[in-house]
Amino acid sequence: MTGASIDLNADLGEGFGRWRLTDDERLLSVVTSANVACGFHAGDAATMRRVCDLAAERGVRIGAQVSYRDLAGFGRRAMDVPADELAAEVAYQIGALEVFARAAGARVSYVKPHGALYNRVVHDGEQARAVVEGVLLAGGRLPLLGLPGSRLHGCAREAGLPVVAEAFADRAYEADGTLVPRGREGAVVHDPDTVVERSVSIARFATVTSHCGRAVSVRARSLCLHGDTPGAVELARRVRARLEEAGVRVEAFA
Amino acid sequence: MTGASIDLNADLGEGFGRWRLTDDERLLSVVTSANVACGFHAGDAATMRRVCDLAAERGVRIGAQVSYRDLAGFGRRAMDVPADELAAEVAYQIGALEVFARAAGARVSYVKPHGALYNRVVHDGEQARAVVEGVLLAGGRLPLLGLPGSRLHGCAREAGLPVVAEAFADRAYEADGTLVPRGREGAVVHDPDTVVERSVSIARFATVTSHCGRAVSVRARSLCLHGDTPGAVELARRVRARLEEAGVRVEAFA
Amino acid sequence: MTGASIDLNADLGEGFGRWRLTDDERLLSVVTSANVACGFHAGDAATMRRVCDLAAERGVRIGAQVSYRDLAGFGRRAMDVPADELAAEVAYQIGALEVFARAAGARVSYVKPHGALYNRVVHDGEQARAVVEGVLLAGGRLPLLGLPGSRLHGCAREAGLPVVAEAFADRAYEADGTLVPRGREGAVVHDPDTVVERSVSIARFATVTSHCGRAVSVRARSLCLHGDTPGAVELARRVRARLEEAGVRVEAFA
Amino acid sequence: MTGASIDLNADLGEGFGRWRLTDDERLLSVVTSANVACGFHAGDAATMRRVCDLAAERGVRIGAQVSYRDLAGFGRRAMDVPADELAAEVAYQIGALEVFARAAGARVSYVKPHGALYNRVVHDGEQARAVVEGVLLAGGRLPLLGLPGSRLHGCAREAGLPVVAEAFADRAYEADGTLVPRGREGAVVHDPDTVVERSVSIARFATVTSHCGRAVSVRARSLCLHGDTPGAVELARRVRARLEEAGVRVEAFA
Repeated sequence: MTGASIDLNADLGEGFGRWRLTDDERLLSVVTSANVACGFHAGDAATMRRVCDLAAERGVRIGAQVSYRDLAGFGRRAMDVPADELAAEVAYQIGALEVFARAAGARVSYVKPHGALYNRVVHDGEQARAVVEGVLLAGGRLPLLGLPGSRLHGCAREAGLPVVAEAFADRAYEADGTLVPRGREGAVVHDPDTVVERSVSIARFATVTSHCGRAVSVRARSLCLHGDTPGAVELARRVRARLEEAGVRVEAFA
Repeated sequence: MTGASIDLNADLGEGFGRWRLTDDERLLSVVTSANVACGFHAGDAATMRRVCDLAAERGVRIGAQVSYRDLAGFGRRAMDVPADELAAEVAYQIGALEVFARAAGARVSYVKPHGALYNRVVHDGEQARAVVEGVLLAGGRLPLLGLPGSRLHGCAREAGLPVVAEAFADRAYEADGTLVPRGREGAVVHDPDTVVERSVSIARFATVTSHCGRAVSVRARSLCLHGDTPGAVELARRVRARLEEAGVRVEAFA
Repeated sequence: MTGASIDLNADLGEGFGRWRLTDDERLLSVVTSANVACGFHAGDAATMRRVCDLAAERGVRIGAQVSYRDLAGFGRRAMDVPADELAAEVAYQIGALEVFARAAGARVSYVKPHGALYNRVVHDGEQARAVVEGVLLAGGRLPLLGLPGSRLHGCAREAGLPVVAEAFADRAYEADGTLVPRGREGAVVHDPDTVVERSVSIARFATVTSHCGRAVSVRARSLCLHGDTPGAVELARRVRARLEEAGVRVEAFA
Repeated sequence: MTGASIDLNADLGEGFGRWRLTDDERLLSVVTSANVACGFHAGDAATMRRVCDLAAERGVRIGAQVSYRDLAGFGRRAMDVPADELAAEVAYQIGALEVFARAAGARVSYVKPHGALYNRVVHDGEQARAVVEGVLLAGGRLPLLGLPGSRLHGCAREAGLPVVAEAFADRAYEADGTLVPRGREGAVVHDPDTVVERSVSIARFATVTSHCGRAVSVRARSLCLHGDTPGAVELARRVRARLEEAGVRVEAFA
């Protein structure tokens, strides 16, 4: 049955040099998949190494959180990067992270685009194909974590790469199962109790209530938890505890 | 017999985005080892990919030319980078390049520090150890190309890594076999004929004339050719042709 | 009479650290306005200083060539930069350049967006307003050099800033006076003789032949010359010589 | 009498893009001089603008906290930057900040080197002269805030620039009035009560107890407060309150 088990993923290692953002150590005691920043929007080499070591120690799966090259904008500004450059930059980031994953006795096990690139490849076929080409360049046929129905997932399938669908318990959904765009009123669910209950609903019943009140089907193998807001770790813990209470196995996707 | 064969190495892919520096395509028809810039002093991802593809096509060995993170200074400004950061940055660069080497059907086969880092690890044991630690992190027990007698080579040996000694036909040597520091008069040999003859002398006889006129023993498995000056490619070709004429096998180190 | 005098502008100082692109010294003997790169797409501080010194010596007007922050993409990749960040980044670049202009006994006299930002503010009102806000922040009520009819010029006028229209002798025009987009066949005029004659036609008669053969009105106070292609300086010289021959005064805009 | 009045300075605006470090708003209610990061070790343009606006509103003096170009290392890694590059980079940073100071109705009123550059110019005459040259390039004859006895202050005086001596209430002093180097045991004073009392002792009596127990003369016109540690703002407030209680006027240097 869909929903019997779920993966929990979060962005980690999103500091840079002197700056810290995510509470990597505590988040790694909650999630099953770590989207590790690879240096283009965040993530210096020493942080990447440390996060990989900690993740491997705790048995948390390591994924490459690939991004546009944009430290100043934290990868949140859409960029018209030519396809050949984008593909090469994606491969570069995966390769750099792989070194630290291997050194920790693990491997990079999946790829998830970050920020503006994540949003862009939902609908932009050219950039979606470039990301897939970058993953193929990096070898290893890594799964792409992203939105079901996205161009990214479409392109990955065409290229024979596995895809993993994720959902967001703290984001509002439209009646058609797409996300309410950020910036629209009610796009983000702030109430922790509601986030917890939506997590269980998605994991167990593949269903979530849309912002207009209807039950919407949301099939997801992974739930994305946010790690960079106050109270984030506490909320993540509650989500995980409640899922387990509800009989959902919290485990990395196969 | 020492000198029966020699490797020719040069820095390649030292552009960044819109900027070009090295004539990669033509240099790759001369050298046997390509020190590929990995993005820290030069070398965007698309260029790294292109250079690896060309090198693999021509059977030229690919090495990681690792550097301080310093695009503005082209890696030529010594930096007091803490050892743990430096080790991680070296591993990061090797990992990023490895992706493109593998995609081209090859492998990263050696590591050579660039610019100010190259000079620093001649005598700075802490940074030398950090570079070696970075190479170990990256796995694969890659040889370190550098100056014989350098701290880098000492640390590499202690760690069980292979070392490859290189010499410079266009640099003046002291009577003790070390290089005359750049900036001192006569440190660089400009006359092409002299450079060509010194190449043969090093490759065949492991000997070069010091700047005070003595024969100095210079044992080197590789000769470094410079690719970023006017006439560089032409000179490199002449060096190679003359070596072959003199019965030296020009081939990558084992 | 329109066309009795014309300004010639070109992008200068577009190297970064070790890399050079534009032949600044020779271009400065031809143009009357220098669009100096300010460090965001190109232009390290030492180069900015040198170009300002040379420009001031030759009486060439100094303008700030402001860009998205994108060294890797040379400012050629459109970016969705939030308006407040973009305004601040524009002001930052103008301020940095002003230091070198003043030190050379001159002033920053105008602003011209570069690359993808130039193209974006033709039609994107939000970014156009942000650029204008950045110019206002920097003080001095500097004129904005750009395409007539662009949103940038519209926003500048609303804010009370002067605008200066420029034209391109080496770009094809549509019948409505807009540029044929790059990438379309025939968008760029390669024949030097044609470029020279179009320069005269624009400067003297405010007219150019569109790519479908009609005479189009192109009122411009400045002609943009390109400095980063082989033969660029030679072509620029020919354009200037031919303009002077044809009785056009080549001088900076007021 | 020395010590009748004292300036309090702190580093501000030391975030970058998504990252924050210093609690700028609260620190600005305590200090009289704000060392604003200018983009080379921290400080994006929008943050610089915001900090200048807040500082001007509160009547806090704005200074340019100039640094090596090193975001990844937060300007804490000594770099061998050639003098002409360093001078130009210093001027660039001052010019960029000046735009935001002026837009806020203020001016950049002094210059203070940051981190590794601060430490380097204590003893390195070449870099000290380069910093001074950068300040001269930027015009306005700005005072240099730094350690009394430093090469920076010596070079500034030779060039006719004013100098402002600063002291550190939370750093241990040697018997000769120099700072105990960081990294040595006891180099940093952690006890808040001791820091408060040392502040008063420096401000009122130009004296501090050295780490070996002697009274050392420390003449300083400004006290540096640290803003990036937990409890920093609270400690800064206590220092200021205690100084005022002790009859010291807390005010910016003339």
